[in-house]
Formats: sequence, structure tokens, C-alpha cells
Amino acid sequence: MSSSPSIITCKAAVAWGAGQPLVIEEVEVSPPQPQEIRIKVVATSLCGSDVAAWESQPIFPRIFGHEAAGIVESVGDGVIEFKEGDHVLTLFTGECKRCRHCTSNKSNMCRALGLERSGVMHSDRKTRFSIRGNPVYHFCAVSSFSEYIVVHSGCAAKVSPNAPLEKICLLSCGVATGLGAAWNVADISKGSNVAVFGLGTVGLSVVQGAKLRGASQVIGVDINPEKVEKAKDFGVDVYLNPKDYDEPIHEVIKRMTDGGADYSFECTGDTRATTSALQSCCDGWGLTVTLGVPKAKPEITAHYGLLLTGRTLRGSMFGGWRPKSDIPSLVDKYLNKEIRVDEFVTHNLQFEDINKAFELMREGKCLRCVLHMPR
Amino acid sequence: MSSSPSIITCKAAVAWGAGQPLVIEEVEVSPPQPQEIRIKVVATSLCGSDVAAWESQPIFPRIFGHEAAGIVESVGDGVIEFKEGDHVLTLFTGECKRCRHCTSNKSNMCRALGLERSGVMHSDRKTRFSIRGNPVYHFCAVSSFSEYIVVHSGCAAKVSPNAPLEKICLLSCGVATGLGAAWNVADISKGSNVAVFGLGTVGLSVVQGAKLRGASQVIGVDINPEKVEKAKDFGVDVYLNPKDYDEPIHEVIKRMTDGGADYSFECTGDTRATTSALQSCCDGWGLTVTLGVPKAKPEITAHYGLLLTGRTLRGSMFGGWRPKSDIPSLVDKYLNKEIRVDEFVTHNLQFEDINKAFELMREGKCLRCVLHMPR
Ligand SMILES: NC(=O)c1ccc[n+]([C@@H]2O[C@H](COP(=O)([O-])OP(=O)(O)OC[C@H]3O[C@@H](n4cnc5c(N)ncnc54)[C@H](O)[C@@H]3O)[C@@H](O)[C@H]2O)c1
Ligand SMILES: NC(=O)c1ccc[n+]([C@@H]2O[C@H](COP(=O)([O-])OP(=O)(O)OC[C@H]3O[C@@H](n4cnc5c(N)ncnc54)[C@H](O)[C@@H]3O)[C@@H](O)[C@H]2O)c1
Ligand SMILES: [Zn+2]
Ligand SMILES: [Zn+2]
Repeated sequence: MSSSPSIITCKAAVAWGAGQPLVIEEVEVSPPQPQEIRIKVVATSLCGSDVAAWESQPIFPRIFGHEAAGIVESVGDGVIEFKEGDHVLTLFTGECKRCRHCTSNKSNMCRALGLERSGVMHSDRKTRFSIRGNPVYHFCAVSSFSEYIVVHSGCAAKVSPNAPLEKICLLSCGVATGLGAAWNVADISKGSNVAVFGLGTVGLSVVQGAKLRGASQVIGVDINPEKVEKAKDFGVDVYLNPKDYDEPIHEVIKRMTDGGADYSFECTGDTRATTSALQSCCDGWGLTVTLGVPKAKPEITAHYGLLLTGRTLRGSMFGGWRPKSDIPSLVDKYLNKEIRVDEFVTHNLQFEDINKAFELMREGKCLRCVLHMPR
Repeated sequence: MSSSPSIITCKAAVAWGAGQPLVIEEVEVSPPQPQEIRIKVVATSLCGSDVAAWESQPIFPRIFGHEAAGIVESVGDGVIEFKEGDHVLTLFTGECKRCRHCTSNKSNMCRALGLERSGVMHSDRKTRFSIRGNPVYHFCAVSSFSEYIVVHSGCAAKVSPNAPLEKICLLSCGVATGLGAAWNVADISKGSNVAVFGLGTVGLSVVQGAKLRGASQVIGVDINPEKVEKAKDFGVDVYLNPKDYDEPIHEVIKRMTDGGADYSFECTGDTRATTSALQSCCDGWGLTVTLGVPKAKPEITAHYGLLLTGRTLRGSMFGGWRPKSDIPSLVDKYLNKEIRVDEFVTHNLQFEDINKAFELMREGKCLRCVLHMPR
């Protein structure tokens, strides 16, 4: 047995206020508490949710980041599943494997380790980061924009050591969310028409998932025309920019699909796009899956008639995957070249250039920026 | 072969303006056109949708009514499926059995004979009723508040001649809608918690359907406490009146169900109840089915977080039944005493007392009033 882990002092990107540039600070990372593990982060990417929360949420100082891959540095009491050196992905929504949801076989909304919104750890409602003794808050109980992090053992998945961490970090959130939305939540069937709103990493992962299921036509909608090239690469057959039309975009989609798409997806973070997505799918069996986390206008509105005529509106966290149970097999699919991940990485940056990554995301100039931690 | 049918002059209850008492008038009913049939109505009941449309829709003069049973009087050219004397239920939404939806096996939203909202017949956009040559408009291409009516042969279902028409008329809309919502749309599983908003005929038919599926707890919500007695009879375990609570009713339901119902249903015609129903069901797998047709506030609003955490919102017309294909078997279930229908009939009235039936519905003093046509 190794001796008990002690506090680590390392570099982290700390957000001190909404929308303000992050500051690389020396932070203290406490040892893992019972059932927790401490991870040396190797690579972490930026997701739309990091940017939205940084711009709009009031909890500061805070360390963002939740899409990450790393290596276990030490484990807390009671952890038997992980050991030093294991390769892991972090999970922004965990899996205790014991609660009513985890044992239900139809939910990934763990009661014990679900999305943590208050900036603290699940177990003791405290932080594991501090600067000169003052707490620094977490994001989703992950906070991967730090060289070392502490997470609950239910919020990490052990993965194959053969997979490149600087690529599979994307399976810790965005790419998995989109694939899961297409496969688990919508269960897209062969020959379908699919409309995807928002062609960032989540939306294009839906596109990839739809194509792998044999969708016959994928319509991609984005207000940023710079997304078109990657979109075509991932399988978007028709790109539509709502700004190019005088009529509402759902009218265009309904015409193109003889009454509406079989499935539509909102991957934008704009609740108005959820309404458009619902309007774009067909009556009788049209299914709209909404995935975005809006910064503003949190209410979705929909005319009752859209539902009465047989449409379904459904949302999901992390594409419906049971995070610990299912994610390792997605990494295997990547290794087997059954799914593409590398092509989502448009930028590789050193950790200290994290503010550039935030700007690229905010300006819509990237899909995923991967930050590489100092060795 | 009998000679071609001619115009019939008979009594009908004509609405001349929104919310104004109906007037029993002599109307001319044209012969059935190709693919149409003329029916002698025997019994017709009032549904919430008749009352809502009479109060709010601008098409007049008009003959309401869409929940009815009768006997075929004559058939138009090309009709082979019906003959004089057949017992039939009218269908407010039809089934052509040929369109993309009818042949899809996953939709009852027939493209050819779907809900007709403009007050005319599907085939030629004209009316079959007139008063001294002036058109009187239809409701749902049925208009059963008339002694004789013409409907498309795709908008009627031939049923067992052994079933009492003055009871099974309820299977032509309200009772079938609720049972179908529970069985086809939600597919309620044994042991579930179910919350039903609105304890009229549609809501209590959901309750009946839920109990037959083995639901363990059915919570019924209605702002009218007079509904409680029938509600208990049909299987409501707990009755809640939102007016009795200082907190939102979904908070009460979430407490009673350890986080929310497995299924919730809106059967009120109030879109705010749809929001409450969604808030009342659990995350992970909670399903809300909305059935109401609102007179006001047609937009449903829902916080995105309700969906993101795994809830589903779905609507349906006529409980998802394929109207012609499925309804005859519901009549058989009634004859086999597998489902209850009689208990929904709280009032039997002569046709000429139709305004009393409208008042009873409007005041919430009945479940179904059945109007008996003169022999
Ligand atoms: N449900 C989940 O578990 C989950 C997981 C990850 C991300 N998300 C959310 O999914 C959304 C997408 O994430 P991402 O990382 O791909 O973000 P992103 O910023 O890379 O992509 C969003 C895309 O949507 C486009 N867009 C914005 N508003 C639009 C509109 N009104 N119409 C059409 N296009 C519009 C943008 O131009 C951009 O290309 C975000 O809201 C994020 O918070 C949810
Ligand atoms: N989707 C369909 O195919 C279909 C078919 C038939 C009826 N409908 C609709 O379903 C609804 C119910 O029909 P019905 O015939 O049972 O009507 P009804 O009027 O007999 O019953 C409605 C019940 O809802 C209650 N209610 C109204 N507002 C409420 C609220 N905010 N909260 C709780 N309870 C509330 C009323 O007190 C009443 O008991 C109507 O809107 C009708 O138009 C839809
Ligand atoms: Zn759990
Ligand atoms: Zn059809």
C-alpha cells in the first residue's frame, strides 16, 4: 500500500467572474475523500455548456471543464474499482449503480451522482480546490481545467489504455451525447429523414449517429455558415441557414421532406430552435429530441396542435447513456474505427492558451479545441 | 338495387353564433356523394370539444356533434363496405387505409380524411346540409346533432349490431380517446404511478385504462370537486383539487410519488395543466400525454430542464387508435364486459333538450349527456 495522498499544488484556469478571461492560478487540490479518486488530467476539451455557464452562471471563483481524459493519480478510501495509472474519462453526470434510477434500466438520471449544479462535490457539499485556503468552486463536480482534479469514483469511467486520451476526451461529453441522442433516445431507423439544428460537436455527432443508422436524408440547420464544410464531411446532405430564407425554416424542411422529418434534434442551446425543430418534424410519429442548455429564455413553447397531431418532444442528458456502464464500449468502438472522433478536434492548444479556446468557441470558429496539459 | 337516395328533410340543432343557444331547425340533408354514406343517427353524446368549438370557433351556421352511433340509411356510389341497416359509429378523424400515414402502421393521422376543421366535407369542400338552399357547416365532417347525416365511408366504423347504440356512441370519441391514450400512446405498465389532470370522460377513461393495465396508484386532479365520486368509481385512488393547496399541485404529486409519477395525462383543455402534468412526472422516464383542445392560450410552455432530465411530452388524436381498424374491437370489448362505458352516461335527454346538455357540460355537471333522437 502506498502512503495516504497529500495535497497537490498545481495549475488551474480559474474563472473569477462571468465572461471574464480565466486566470491560470496555483491551486491546492485536496486528497480524494472516501469513494473519490484524484486524476491527472491529460487532455480536456471545451463544450458549449462550459462557455454558456461561464457567461451566465453566478458561482465564482470556479474551475470549469467537464470533457476530459486522464490518469488516476490516487484513490480515496473504499475505492476498489480504480487504481493509480488507470486511464479514465470524467463524467459530468455519474452513476452510483444502486439508486432507483441506476437500477431501473430506463434512466441515466442517477439520484446520488446526477448533474451537480451548485459548484460543490456530491458527498459533502464542499470543494476540493482552494487558493490560499479559500474555496474554489467546481463545475459539474468535474472541473477539468486543472492539472489535477478530484472526482467521485461514480463520475469516472475506466477505459482502454490503448486509446489516445487527447482524442477520446470528446467521448466524455459532446460526441457521446450526440451519438446517444441518435441511437438511444431517438433510436433512428434506416431510411429516415433527419433534421439537426446546430452543427457543433453535439449536432454533428447526431449526424454521424444518424448516418450510421442508415438515415436517407440529413438536413443540417445552423446560423453560422462556417459550419458547412465539417457538416458535409460528417454526412449532412443539405445545409440550411435560416438567415437565407424569408419564410420560417420549418416550412422549408416540411417541403423538402413531404410533410416533415421523421426525427429532429435541437443541439443549439436556443429554446426557439426547439420550437422550430418540433415544427419541422412530421405529424403521426415525428420525434424531436432537445439537448441544448440555454443561457437565456429557458422556457420552450410549442403550439398544442403540434403535439395533438402525434408529435413527441423528448430531452436527454448525455444522450441517454448510463455513463459508467456504457462509455467504455464507445471508446472500443472508436478504437475499432466504428465511430469517428478525431475529426471533431479542430484545434489543439496548450493549457495556458485556454482563453483562446473560449474565444474560438464563443465566436463559433471551432468544433472542439483540445487543451493539452503540461507533462 | 334500390333507387338513388334523394334529399331528406329532418330536424337538426343548428348553432347560429358562438355560445348562442342552438335552434332546432328543419334542414335538408343531401344524398351521399361517391364514397359517402348517409346515417340515421340514433344516439349522440356531447364531448368537451363540441362545447369548446361552439364557444370559440367562428364558423356559423353550423351543426356540431361528433360522438355518435346510428344506422346506415343509404350509400353513395362506390361504397361496398356498408349497406343499409348496418350499425355504425361516426369517426371525427377518418382512415383512408391508403395514404402514407394509414399504411405506416405507426400513425392515425390519415392524410386524406384527417380532422376537418373548416366546416366542410373532405371530398369537395362543400356541405351536405342546407336550410332553404343556404349551406349549414359541418363539424369534424360528422355533425351528429342532426337526425340524418352524411359522412365519408372512411369516417364510420361498422360495429356489432348487438351493442346498444345509446351507450357505444361514447366509443366514437371520449371513452376511446382516453383508453387509447393509456394503452397505445403511453403503454402504461403494471405497478406504475399515474397522474390524470381533468376527470371528465376523457380523463376517467385514462383512469379506467390505467387500472386495467395494473397501475398501482392513480392520482386524479380536477378543479371541480363534483367529479370526485365518479372518479373514485373509475379507480382514482387519490383526488387532488389544486384550489385546496397553497403550493403548486405538482409539488404535492412529486411528494406523493417519491419524485414524480411515471405517467401523467392532461385531459382538461387547459395548456397550463399540460405544464403541470409535465412537472408532475419523474425525471429519467416520465411521460406526459396531452389530449386537450384548448379554447384559449394554445401555446404549451415548459422549462427546458424538464425535458433535459429525461421527460417526454407527447400528444395524440383519438388515443392513437386507427379509427376504422381498431374501434370495432373496442365495441366487442364492451360487449364482453372488459371495459365499462355505461357509467359515463350521467344524463339521457331527448334531442330537443340539447341546450340543456350544453349547459350541463359547460357547468361541469355531467360526464356524458346522451341525446336520443326521435324514432
Ligand atoms: N444534453 C446534454 O447532455 C448536453 C451535452 C453536451 C452539450 N449540451 C448542449 O448542447 C448544445 C450544443 O453543444 P455544442 O458543444 O455542440 O455547442 P456549439 O456551440 O459548438 O454548437 C452549437 C451550434 O448551434 C448553432 N446555433 C446557435 N443558435 C442557433 C439557432 N437558433 N439555430 C440554428 N443554429 C444555432 C451555433 O452556430 C453552433 O454551431 C449546447 O447548448 C450545450 O450546452 C447538452
Ligand atoms: N385528443 C383527442 O383526440 C380528444 C378527444 C376528445 C376530447 N378531447 C379533449 O379532451 C379534453 C377533455 O374532454 P372531456 O370530454 O373529458 O371534457 P370535460 O369538459 O368533460 O372534462 C374536462 C375536465 O377538466 C377539468 N379541468 C378544466 N381545467 C382544469 C385544470 N386547469 N386543472 C384541472 N382540471 C381542469 C374540468 O373541471 C373537467 O372536469 C377536452 O379539451 C376535449 O376537447 C381530445
Ligand atoms: Zn444512481
Ligand atoms: Zn389515410
